[in-house]
Amino acid sequence: MPSATSWINLRIATFDPALPQPYGLRDAMALDVVDGRIHRLLPMGDWRAPPGAEVIDAEGRCLTPGLIDCHTHLVWGGDRAGEFERRLRGASYAEIAAAGGGIRATVAATRAADEQALLDAAAPRLRALLAEGVTCVEIKSGYGLATAHELKQLRVAKALGERFGVRVRTTLLAAHAVPPEFVGDADGYIERVCTEILPSAAAAGLADAVDLFCESVGFDLAQSRRVFQRARELGLPCKAHVEQLSAMGGARLAAEFGALSADHVEYLEDADIAALAAAGTVAVLLPGAFLFLNETRKPPVAALRQAGVPLAVASDLNPGTSPFASLRLMANLACTQFGLTPEEALAGVTREAARALGLDDCGTIRPGLRADLALWDVEHPAQLVYEPLTPRLWRRVLGGAVQP
Amino acid sequence: MPSATSWINLRIATFDPALPQPYGLRDAMALDVVDGRIHRLLPMGDWRAPPGAEVIDAEGRCLTPGLIDCHTHLVWGGDRAGEFERRLRGASYAEIAAAGGGIRATVAATRAADEQALLDAAAPRLRALLAEGVTCVEIKSGYGLATAHELKQLRVAKALGERFGVRVRTTLLAAHAVPPEFVGDADGYIERVCTEILPSAAAAGLADAVDLFCESVGFDLAQSRRVFQRARELGLPCKAHVEQLSAMGGARLAAEFGALSADHVEYLEDADIAALAAAGTVAVLLPGAFLFLNETRKPPVAALRQAGVPLAVASDLNPGTSPFASLRLMANLACTQFGLTPEEALAGVTREAARALGLDDCGTIRPGLRADLALWDVEHPAQLVYEPLTPRLWRRVLGGAVQP
Ligand SMILES: [Zn+2]
Ligand SMILES: [Zn+2]
Repeated sequence: MPSATSWINLRIATFDPALPQPYGLRDAMALDVVDGRIHRLLPMGDWRAPPGAEVIDAEGRCLTPGLIDCHTHLVWGGDRAGEFERRLRGASYAEIAAAGGGIRATVAATRAADEQALLDAAAPRLRALLAEGVTCVEIKSGYGLATAHELKQLRVAKALGERFGVRVRTTLLAAHAVPPEFVGDADGYIERVCTEILPSAAAAGLADAVDLFCESVGFDLAQSRRVFQRARELGLPCKAHVEQLSAMGGARLAAEFGALSADHVEYLEDADIAALAAAGTVAVLLPGAFLFLNETRKPPVAALRQAGVPLAVASDLNPGTSPFASLRLMANLACTQFGLTPEEALAGVTREAARALGLDDCGTIRPGLRADLALWDVEHPAQLVYEPLTPRLWRRVLGGAVQP
Repeated sequence: MPSATSWINLRIATFDPALPQPYGLRDAMALDVVDGRIHRLLPMGDWRAPPGAEVIDAEGRCLTPGLIDCHTHLVWGGDRAGEFERRLRGASYAEIAAAGGGIRATVAATRAADEQALLDAAAPRLRALLAEGVTCVEIKSGYGLATAHELKQLRVAKALGERFGVRVRTTLLAAHAVPPEFVGDADGYIERVCTEILPSAAAAGLADAVDLFCESVGFDLAQSRRVFQRARELGLPCKAHVEQLSAMGGARLAAEFGALSADHVEYLEDADIAALAAAGTVAVLLPGAFLFLNETRKPPVAALRQAGVPLAVASDLNPGTSPFASLRLMANLACTQFGLTPEEALAGVTREAARALGLDDCGTIRPGLRADLALWDVEHPAQLVYEPLTPRLWRRVLGGAVQP
């Protein structure tokens, strides 16, 4: 006999694009869950308790899809608070880099840490996201920059998914920076990425996607193309950090490879936007890095919206540029800093975030999808975005099961 | 026999200005608490368990003064998420005000709510602050704007302090805005404030201080002076919202009245800074409002620092301009947006925040002060500021007692 639960007296923000109401909002609803999947939604007046189902009365609370953080680097070793302090006392980026700081410090500490230490360090960050109703989180490698250490990071990411009640999607970001062994030889490192790191991660089944950092301080277009080509050969979908600090053409390259997402995108140009729209690539907005780095160039939200490019929002949680373990804050910043509406911001951390991960079984509330859900002590979902740091989660549900 | 607790194996960020180390940091320390007060600090090597004392081993964790949020409006009725949504969909402030939005909406909802409803609404906001190690919080009135409702707000603030393990300081902010009954007659409302609201709050013992909003959209200098004068007659210390949106001279007026604090202060001029320094008035920085309102004019931190004006940092938690229930995020923003160092930011939410409330019995860790403390799972206090939304609190201690 199937396991069944009914949630009753719900206000549901379905985010179902087939519905005309903002947020796909439906009032006075019931939701039946069978075997971890959404079985049906129906008005309370039509609902009868299914035989044997557990019934949970939400007393009018608001239900949304579980939140999805589609871009994080939350597994890292070491700590960059000292560097933060030195910078605010006046040290330049160059001075900090010369002293071994920046991403090189994180790479050294991540390499030095064993899996247990990395997991312990990541746990409170992940817990903060779960307390916000996150049911799916993407976690990138990119601080190992050598086969063993990249795979170690991805194993920790998967272990976090098993340890905590959350679905984890792993992304190999070996092409994040040039490691110390390859200084001055970025091409040589890309060769290593393509011939060794990517195939190893693919063979071990550790990567759901492949990402790279296409930027003046990262990798150039030709190097990025090589990585994407190798990913394609291995049957792995692509994602890319592009146009964060300059217009490099990375977004167009990502679109050419049918990438799931192009992330950051502050410096997108019109031709890039058209290419993303044509490819169906999601633009992932990362306002945490924008804020932390005091950037002023904003992503062209109005043009993206008009072109029909799907807009996701993520935390980019990482030690260098976005040390903010809150997806709800990111949704708020996407509104106040980038001009999204609260509806767009919440869609960006549910429906569009699922799309940015290539997932079609979550992110909205429709029959057949996974019952990955968040129940909130609010009257209206906009409140989650508007007052982002006041805890409002009542229940978090993963695959139909209420999480502790 | 006195109640006694010893905390051992501590790294203590004392924020004691008599110590030369950054953060007043002392390693491998013990702290004896007797009858809710800090009895002594001493190196572990010199410590012996006091007879009958409970001993708690912090295993090297970091101890700071309990955090102090010295500027909040966290008791309010209603919800402005709908207004937030309308604004992001393109409505102007004027359109929202014409539709009864803005502070008038909050005043109407606060007046309509009874004390229990206001307490229930405020509770999750306060809990979020307590989860960050806050042991003292200032709460303003200012959404009642009539005697009964201003006093109701202050009673709710005091009730929150009794219900939760936190010390509450109440501030009467009757001169926050002109209420609907006095539209076009701000002088008439100030007369009411001075003849009725202030004396009533003082007589009821509900106000620890008196605040006002000196701004083009608030009250002018002459009106502000009347309020300060009345506060002085009633023996209540002054605070003021000044120079947030324009240079009005409010800071100089506050200094003239020896105000505890001048808050916001983005538009301070040189003469204002000198006046604050001479008066010993604390400048309270409120980066949440700066962020939420997309302001660009920053407080003159370098000049304030050079003049020796004490700098505090607070959440300004309120429904219109700073809906952020996180003091650690504010400390982070004070660094990234305003240029404070992490040490200054943490001093701003401990030692200097106490000063902004006129309290000399908390905010640093020294013998004789209240044992209002926070113990953290970090190696260094800078981490609390640098990665602000990752929970790090291990224990919160109020008057020597570990809080649940
Ligand atoms: Zn990233
Ligand atoms: Zn305020």
